[in-house]
Amino acid sequence: MQQEMNIGVVTVSDRASRGEYEDLGGPAIEAYLSEVIDSAYSTTRRIISDDQSLIENTLIELCDRQHCSLILTTGGTGPALRDVTPEATEAVCHKMMHGFGELMRQVSLQKVATAILSRQTAGVRNQSLIVNLPGKPKAIAECLDGVFAAIPYCIDLIDGPYMVTNESRFVAFRPKK
Amino acid sequence: MQQEMNIGVVTVSDRASRGEYEDLGGPAIEAYLSEVIDSAYSTTRRIISDDQSLIENTLIELCDRQHCSLILTTGGTGPALRDVTPEATEAVCHKMMHGFGELMRQVSLQKVATAILSRQTAGVRNQSLIVNLPGKPKAIAECLDGVFAAIPYCIDLIDGPYMVTNESRFVAFRPKK
Amino acid sequence: MQQEMNIGVVTVSDRASRGEYEDLGGPAIEAYLSEVIDSAYSTTRRIISDDQSLIENTLIELCDRQHCSLILTTGGTGPALRDVTPEATEAVCHKMMHGFGELMRQVSLQKVATAILSRQTAGVRNQSLIVNLPGKPKAIAECLDGVFAAIPYCIDLIDGPYMVTNESRFVAFRPKK
Repeated sequence: MQQEMNIGVVTVSDRASRGEYEDLGGPAIEAYLSEVIDSAYSTTRRIISDDQSLIENTLIELCDRQHCSLILTTGGTGPALRDVTPEATEAVCHKMMHGFGELMRQVSLQKVATAILSRQTAGVRNQSLIVNLPGKPKAIAECLDGVFAAIPYCIDLIDGPYMVTNESRFVAFRPKK
Repeated sequence: MQQEMNIGVVTVSDRASRGEYEDLGGPAIEAYLSEVIDSAYSTTRRIISDDQSLIENTLIELCDRQHCSLILTTGGTGPALRDVTPEATEAVCHKMMHGFGELMRQVSLQKVATAILSRQTAGVRNQSLIVNLPGKPKAIAECLDGVFAAIPYCIDLIDGPYMVTNESRFVAFRPKK
Repeated sequence: MQQEMNIGVVTVSDRASRGEYEDLGGPAIEAYLSEVIDSAYSTTRRIISDDQSLIENTLIELCDRQHCSLILTTGGTGPALRDVTPEATEAVCHKMMHGFGELMRQVSLQKVATAILSRQTAGVRNQSLIVNLPGKPKAIAECLDGVFAAIPYCIDLIDGPYMVTNESRFVAFRPKK
């Protein structure tokens, strides 16, 4: 029996966590996932403030207790004092995957010169892939379009459930055996 | 009242610091700044040897005491034994900005295959953005042309003074409110 | 008298080290070197398991005792639990050269979307340049085609022997004096 995949969706924002601001990033990620994934999955949502310890503890809980194969964060990747999502991600990961950040910045550079200010990264903790996404909903879809084709095979490699993607949307790349 | 911006310009070179070699990198940076910045600013210049502690202390002084919003270094970013500017930069920064080094290497790769030997990076310490530039004057302008459009908004995000750029030269990118 | 260059070629693979699998990566690297290098060199080969301490000790021995100017590894750069070649490389290097990994991922992205899963890096330990290559023989040549033009000059900068490349294959870039 194919195990259902759990995906963590974490909005990191002081204002959204206090309810001063509607969370648009989390719903944008959920909409994207429902469009591209054809296999069974559930999502676990969190909306938290830009506090490094809190982000680390949330990621650890989603990895170690909720057994999320994939965790997508939105927000907290800029140069400002309260932007610490990449630092929290690096602190909890066992392996960093620099190719994700490099490609997301390249994709965003086609749109805006300030893409280089984004410090998005990705990494693996045990059997969970964590990917930082930008805060802006429009930029979330652009970045996911850049990297999502590599995500199903990455989850295979860390022994997670098999993700089937909607091939009318795009084809997940897996090498031929 | 708009506060005047202070910009640190640091030449890192054993030979230039001993006077055996004319510093060409520092003046190239100053010429570039005068061409692209239209708002008020002053520069604080340093010429120091390739000594990691000295580079770290100089960067800390320019950030913490001279309150430079932007510090541009030239030299010391290659693979040779005495090239330690990136290590010193990383040691004093609170946040690393990998997008700067990635884009500067991409820009330089259009010119020379050895661009990948450049270890230039950038980061933020409190309210200061530190960017490593190459040692060669011609390469300095090429790299700044690649990344400068993102610098004014980065300084906004770390609560520095508002920089106005010369729009006949190029337009600083700031997102619409 | 021109000193002969020693080049380390390290296959990192649990299965190849146990003889369950023919090592194809090491021979692919040796074939590439014989095609592009015209000056005298010898190679020192190792086939080891995906054990981080063993990889670190092997790299240290090749740098410090075998005086390899260049060490090329193949394998162990993915996201899986046993893939730790980049971590071992970083642990033994004094300087990291992020431009190599960035460019190799860019080159591989032209072929496969999963290139961003490769965590290949490069760095310098004393007078040795260490470069991680992928495990697949075809990808090895693609990645070396991307970065090899910068390798002879890098070895010059870390005071290694002068490498002459086969100019009908490609031209090693060295800046004009």
